[in-house]
Amino acid sequence: MTTEQRRILVIGIGAGDPDHLTLGAVKAIRRADVFFIVGKGPEKSALTDLRHRMLAEHAQAGHRVVEVADPDRDRRPMDRSDYTSAVHDWRTRRADIFEKLIREEMTAGETGAFLVWGDPSLYDSTLGSLTTIEERGTVAFSVDVVPGISSVSSLAARHRIPLNQVGRPVHITPARRLSDVGRNEDGDIVVMLDAHESFTGFEGDDVWIYWGAYLGTPDELLVAGPLREVSDRIRQLRAEARARHGWIMDTYLLRIPEPDAEQA
Amino acid sequence: MTTEQRRILVIGIGAGDPDHLTLGAVKAIRRADVFFIVGKGPEKSALTDLRHRMLAEHAQAGHRVVEVADPDRDRRPMDRSDYTSAVHDWRTRRADIFEKLIREEMTAGETGAFLVWGDPSLYDSTLGSLTTIEERGTVAFSVDVVPGISSVSSLAARHRIPLNQVGRPVHITPARRLSDVGRNEDGDIVVMLDAHESFTGFEGDDVWIYWGAYLGTPDELLVAGPLREVSDRIRQLRAEARARHGWIMDTYLLRIPEPDAEQA
Ligand SMILES: C[S@@+](CC[C@H](N)C(=O)[O-])C[C@H]1O[C@@H](n2cnc3c(N)ncnc32)[C@H](O)[C@@H]1O
Ligand SMILES: C[S@@+](CC[C@H](N)C(=O)[O-])C[C@H]1O[C@@H](n2cnc3c(N)ncnc32)[C@H](O)[C@@H]1O
Repeated sequence: MTTEQRRILVIGIGAGDPDHLTLGAVKAIRRADVFFIVGKGPEKSALTDLRHRMLAEHAQAGHRVVEVADPDRDRRPMDRSDYTSAVHDWRTRRADIFEKLIREEMTAGETGAFLVWGDPSLYDSTLGSLTTIEERGTVAFSVDVVPGISSVSSLAARHRIPLNQVGRPVHITPARRLSDVGRNEDGDIVVMLDAHESFTGFEGDDVWIYWGAYLGTPDELLVAGPLREVSDRIRQLRAEARARHGWIMDTYLLRIPEPDAEQA
Repeated sequence: MTTEQRRILVIGIGAGDPDHLTLGAVKAIRRADVFFIVGKGPEKSALTDLRHRMLAEHAQAGHRVVEVADPDRDRRPMDRSDYTSAVHDWRTRRADIFEKLIREEMTAGETGAFLVWGDPSLYDSTLGSLTTIEERGTVAFSVDVVPGISSVSSLAARHRIPLNQVGRPVHITPARRLSDVGRNEDGDIVVMLDAHESFTGFEGDDVWIYWGAYLGTPDELLVAGPLREVSDRIRQLRAEARARHGWIMDTYLLRIPEPDAEQA
């Protein structure tokens, strides 16, 4: 006989479109006894609404939902090591909250689930927080991860493009590292977490941008074209949308021409 | 009244696990009149079996299936520009085949579907071939893309890890470009399309590898650990599996320590 453990499911729910949910995610949602929904800030309601709709449609009768606020994070401009330590600090506080949820809001033998935006593997701290808790060793639990459609896959699908050019790498970066990545790379660049329209400063002739905001939602915006020609339009759309919604989430691909100039 | 067009759906089906199919992919499969299944080589049957099982479960009664062989591709070792032109050449022949399928195997007003392994945006030539046909202007059709779970998302989920470290980029590369990418980068590296165990030559202390083969299938293999310690074991597992199956598909993440050494 095995001792019954707490079981945690980290479920990727896709980046905005309810049809992004996988059959595996639906099954996982059906299995869970309790859902932990973490949200905060002006985008909170839009991002948690989708989760609530998914639960209404797929969760078992009698499931419980616990909503918690994300701890505040220091978002002042800062250099790289301060940034990393601010994020680590925030993660510790997040781990404290999650540990409490796992210990107090579920019992051994139960299954608890985190519904993660997009794919849990990309710029999401849920898995990092759970690792921190595991290392503390204060509460025993297992972790299973259900992959989800990321905003990156969604961007490519909506523009009907591959992320990579033939035989070449593709780089995914937070906007704050775009200039480093752009300096060294051969290959295309996907930019996430852009608070400052970093594409504006991006150098290079013949670079194309494929931009998408609120992907998969009824508010979706798409623009594609030569960066030089369309960047003003993107800036304008972005400002309008941000004013209208109070927040924005956007992602874009910068398509960098082959240095050898062997393309058509 | 609009003239009826041919409609093409490019549907990502995930990288091996039938539960990776999204609800959107299930709906798309249900809508299609005809499916084009492209396969070739020793891995053909494994990769097409999954597609046939998905069709049996989700496609409408009376749907048609057309199987075609992928054209041969020159796979001799070659330098970068020869490689790119060999791929382009192969794409042209592939576009010829697809054009014929679209023109002859479906009529205006019908919906045809390509079931693409993983996510159509990563190292897959279906969208490139369709663009080539569109540019020829010889047959009119629309294209919609349904994103899928890539082998990269699947790898991360099975190892229960994020692809990126906090605030840092992640690079996805074909193995033949690993040494270039590894030389310049700050950030972790995902390697695909590795015919030669390129991780063997990868330099760097403290690099961890998260390796996965036949992900999502009953034959799945996973190894994680310090590259120096586990690379022999991966080589051995890889050789055994390749001998047993006649082919292998594997993907891995190389986790590169932060240069500033601010990690624990
Ligand atoms: C904290 S990260 C989480 C990413 C998520 N795990 C994923 O797989 O997409 C948030 C960033 O993802 C991108 N993003 C997420 N959802 C998006 C959407 N629906 N449309 C555009 N970008 C989105 C934006 O770049 C945003 O700044
Ligand atoms: C032509 S690429 C297609 C990638 C696919 N579009 C995707 O999204 O995963 C084939 C490569 O994908 C990776 N791959 C695909 N399926 C895999 C699986 N089930 N397990 C491990 N690697 C896989 C391997 O690196 C393989 O060489």
